[in-house]
Amino acid sequence: MTMRLTTLCYIERDGQWLMLNRVKKRVDENAGKWIGVGGKLEENECPEECIAREVREETGMILKNARLRGVITFILPDWGNEMTFLYTGEAEGEPSADCPEGILRWVPIGQVEKLALWEGDRIFLPLLQTRQGCFSLKLVYAAGGSLAGCLLDGKDITKALLGEHQ
Amino acid sequence: MTMRLTTLCYIERDGQWLMLNRVKKRVDENAGKWIGVGGKLEENECPEECIAREVREETGMILKNARLRGVITFILPDWGNEMTFLYTGEAEGEPSADCPEGILRWVPIGQVEKLALWEGDRIFLPLLQTRQGCFSLKLVYAAGGSLAGCLLDGKDITKALLGEHQ
Repeated sequence: MTMRLTTLCYIERDGQWLMLNRVKKRVDENAGKWIGVGGKLEENECPEECIAREVREETGMILKNARLRGVITFILPDWGNEMTFLYTGEAEGEPSADCPEGILRWVPIGQVEKLALWEGDRIFLPLLQTRQGCFSLKLVYAAGGSLAGCLLDGKDITKALLGEHQ
Repeated sequence: MTMRLTTLCYIERDGQWLMLNRVKKRVDENAGKWIGVGGKLEENECPEECIAREVREETGMILKNARLRGVITFILPDWGNEMTFLYTGEAEGEPSADCPEGILRWVPIGQVEKLALWEGDRIFLPLLQTRQGCFSLKLVYAAGGSLAGCLLDGKDITKALLGEHQ
C-alpha cells in the first residue's frame, strides 16, 4: 500500500484565500488549476512541520494559527493515491512574486468557485466554510480525472453529490 | 519518504475502553503492550473504511459513530515511521474471544494508565478525555523505545512533558 502524503493550506486574509495558479511546471498533474499552497511531506516531518515549510518556500510568508481542517484520501488511478492534510491559517508578510510552482493571487472566498478547480475541490472547499471541526473525505477519481465517488466521515455521499450527473 | 499508515480505535462502553493485550503474535513491536484495536490501511481504503474493517476482523463487532480524534506521526527508528489515525466510537455486539492479535478486555477508562502502555500513549490517551476536536501529535521515539520529543498541533511540548525526566 503506497500513498503520497501531502499538505495543503488555504491562507485567509480579509475574506480572501491565497490561491496558486499552477502554470510554471512542465509536468504537473495540477497544470492550469487553482489550488492552495502545499506539498509533499519530507522524511521525519509531521504535517504541521511540512505545511509551515511549504508556505515559507512557496510564498515567503510565515504561517500562523494553522488549523487542521480535514484529511482527504484521494484515489487517483492516473497519478497514484494521495493522502492530504488540509489546513486553513493566517500568514505574516506578502506573497512572493516568484513562487516556483505558479502564480499567487488573493481571491475573495466567494469568487474561488469561478476558478478552474478540480471537481473534488468543489466538495471540500465549501466544507471549510460550513464545518468547524476536522472532516475526513475520500475522493475517488476515475481515469481521466472525473470524480466517481465520495465518502464523508465514512458515509457514502456519492449519490447526493453526483446523482444528478450520473 | 515512506510512512506506514494505520488506524487505532478506543471503543467506549459504560465508561470503559476495549483494550487489546498484544500477546499472540511471535514478532510484534507491541508485544505485551495494551493498545486499542486497529491496523494497516489496505490499498484504496480511507481511514474510516480501514478502522471499520479492523474492528470487525479483530473483535467481531460493528463500529458505530466513529469519530476522528487525532492524527499521530510516530518517528520510530526501530520500526520505521508510522502515521496513525486515532478514533473513538461505540460498537455493537460483544468482543470475540479469539482475536488473532491478542486478548480483548473492557477496562475502566481511569484504570487504563495502570496497564503496560507505550510512553507516547500516556500523552495521547488523556487528550481523548480533555479535547473535543481533532489534534495532531508528533511522537519522536529514540532507538530502544523511549520517548525523545513531542509536538502537539505543531508546538514543541517536549520540555513541558518530559522535562522532569531529562
